[in-house]
Amino acid sequence: MNTHNRTEIATLGEFGLIEHLTSGITPANKETLTGVGDDAAILQFGEDEEILVTTDLLMEGVHFDLTYVPLRHLGYKAAMVNISDIYAMNGTPKQITVSIALSKKFCIEDMEDFYEGLKLACKQHNVDIVGGDTSASLTGLAISITAIGCAKKGTVVKRNGAKETNLICVSGNLGAAYMGLQLLEREKIATAGKDMQPDFAGKEYILERQLKPEARKDIIEQLRKENITPTAMIDISDGLSSELMHICKQSKVGCRIYEEHIPIDYQTAIMAEEFNMNVMTCALNGGEDYELLFTVPIADHEKVASMKNVRLIGHIVSEDMGLAFITRDGTEMELRAQGWNQLKEE
Amino acid sequence: MNTHNRTEIATLGEFGLIEHLTSGITPANKETLTGVGDDAAILQFGEDEEILVTTDLLMEGVHFDLTYVPLRHLGYKAAMVNISDIYAMNGTPKQITVSIALSKKFCIEDMEDFYEGLKLACKQHNVDIVGGDTSASLTGLAISITAIGCAKKGTVVKRNGAKETNLICVSGNLGAAYMGLQLLEREKIATAGKDMQPDFAGKEYILERQLKPEARKDIIEQLRKENITPTAMIDISDGLSSELMHICKQSKVGCRIYEEHIPIDYQTAIMAEEFNMNVMTCALNGGEDYELLFTVPIADHEKVASMKNVRLIGHIVSEDMGLAFITRDGTEMELRAQGWNQLKEE
Repeated sequence: MNTHNRTEIATLGEFGLIEHLTSGITPANKETLTGVGDDAAILQFGEDEEILVTTDLLMEGVHFDLTYVPLRHLGYKAAMVNISDIYAMNGTPKQITVSIALSKKFCIEDMEDFYEGLKLACKQHNVDIVGGDTSASLTGLAISITAIGCAKKGTVVKRNGAKETNLICVSGNLGAAYMGLQLLEREKIATAGKDMQPDFAGKEYILERQLKPEARKDIIEQLRKENITPTAMIDISDGLSSELMHICKQSKVGCRIYEEHIPIDYQTAIMAEEFNMNVMTCALNGGEDYELLFTVPIADHEKVASMKNVRLIGHIVSEDMGLAFITRDGTEMELRAQGWNQLKEE
Repeated sequence: MNTHNRTEIATLGEFGLIEHLTSGITPANKETLTGVGDDAAILQFGEDEEILVTTDLLMEGVHFDLTYVPLRHLGYKAAMVNISDIYAMNGTPKQITVSIALSKKFCIEDMEDFYEGLKLACKQHNVDIVGGDTSASLTGLAISITAIGCAKKGTVVKRNGAKETNLICVSGNLGAAYMGLQLLEREKIATAGKDMQPDFAGKEYILERQLKPEARKDIIEQLRKENITPTAMIDISDGLSSELMHICKQSKVGCRIYEEHIPIDYQTAIMAEEFNMNVMTCALNGGEDYELLFTVPIADHEKVASMKNVRLIGHIVSEDMGLAFITRDGTEMELRAQGWNQLKEE
């Protein structure tokens, strides 16, 4: 929290605060008729467009820890994860609404930082902030974001279209955001109450993956350029295993993915080694990478094989063959979701 | 909370819980292509439609108190207040998304009760539940609802269209929900730790206004039937004064409203008397009535005067004349918002 430059929120009040935070936000999309300032935002999409809506609720202490997450990063990430959900439908994000509930420990500068992050993420993806409100919270910060997007009729990609023989692809690399979180947690404990700064040299990449995830607009653009329409797609928020299980369950199919093809960055591997953790477990179950997981017809093999930042990790099989992970030595293991199931974790 | 029939949420987990809660929810609107179960809901509106989106974040201890609000009522109200925002734009509500964050004190039956209320409100207004998620919270319950609606192009009513000589109208009556809240608070204190039930005889109406508010679909329908398009409209969530100030500020006008025309139910008046409160202050500043406040051209005078459940309370004047409340004895008082500004209240 901001301590040196602190203006109490009470000096502005609820309406004042939201006016202050949203002043200077002007719609960039022609689909945005009216943004902040009425009972609802007014949007309009052409006759050939389908509209996508996704929403997320983030709670302090559960989804984020302000002892090591700066509010600017939090704003950026909160917007990004919702934008990612729109891409995961093969859509184009257009607008977000933002509601925040905050306790008295926060000041106006804190919320400005948060909005700065929000605005940066929105700018990068050409998204308008079209509404939201602020209210009080007894303990900590709660953030609710709704993203709205559109897609040409018939181009939306759902989770339920994967077919036998389809190839399973994933963008970027996996497990890095999770290892970044482990590192932050370790340093939080190590530096607690001490006048020392954590040393993150050589670990910048995994930290950035945790604190500043990027929605994969570039992958969606590449897919369109190559004229590839995935049969199923999802973004990886809860871990590869968990997301693949969603696709298989909804598509009524099984899958085979291969250890040797799972993309892992070297910083992730080094960090896992340091923590004495199995790096493959982290790649399969670590959440918050926000990479895209998708399936394509086998006819698109050459195209996806030549795509940048996309890796073929396996293929779809019939439902009765189940979901399996094949290790380097050829052992078949049943795929399980150990992911970020917060309610079960408690 | 449910104590006699309690199934821990951990037995289902996050995905299990949301599947359980949303099973049996099937879209009723043709505009809903896909509801719960993917990264985003997929909606589609015709070429002549504008789309409305509104969102709300409710925090336990700030927006609701579970010691006297049953979860079923809370679900009903949470949906209703967002539906009300769509009507306040002269739109038709079509879909909602629901995110909840809950601490371990809640069990599955609690969430079932909450969803029962949600579903009832949605059914009454022909609204589809198209998405949402559940996650953990360290303390208490947080609820985030986004409502989506549509309106024929050019028929949306904003806050900024009020013009000099326009008539100011309000539906239903005011202050009842606020008095209901006062009563619940009093009985909470009176019965705390004691084995006694509060006595609500003769006060059912104000309690219902607080616990089970109704979005004024009927007023919107009447307006359409009478071919009246308000010049400005808002729903009363923060109190008449506060909402009227929003309209005047955004429309750059002033107003005159008259004490003798402010609609107040007799139960509200009796309750205020019992509490030794000024009933007019309650009617002007008490929130959560979810009545509609709107302005119409003076040419519509006869039509609105004959509308059921609508009261003419004043008229719009030029900006430099300011915002005033005229008492029965003709005294002009400046209108002030003392409403539900939770951040300032703290």
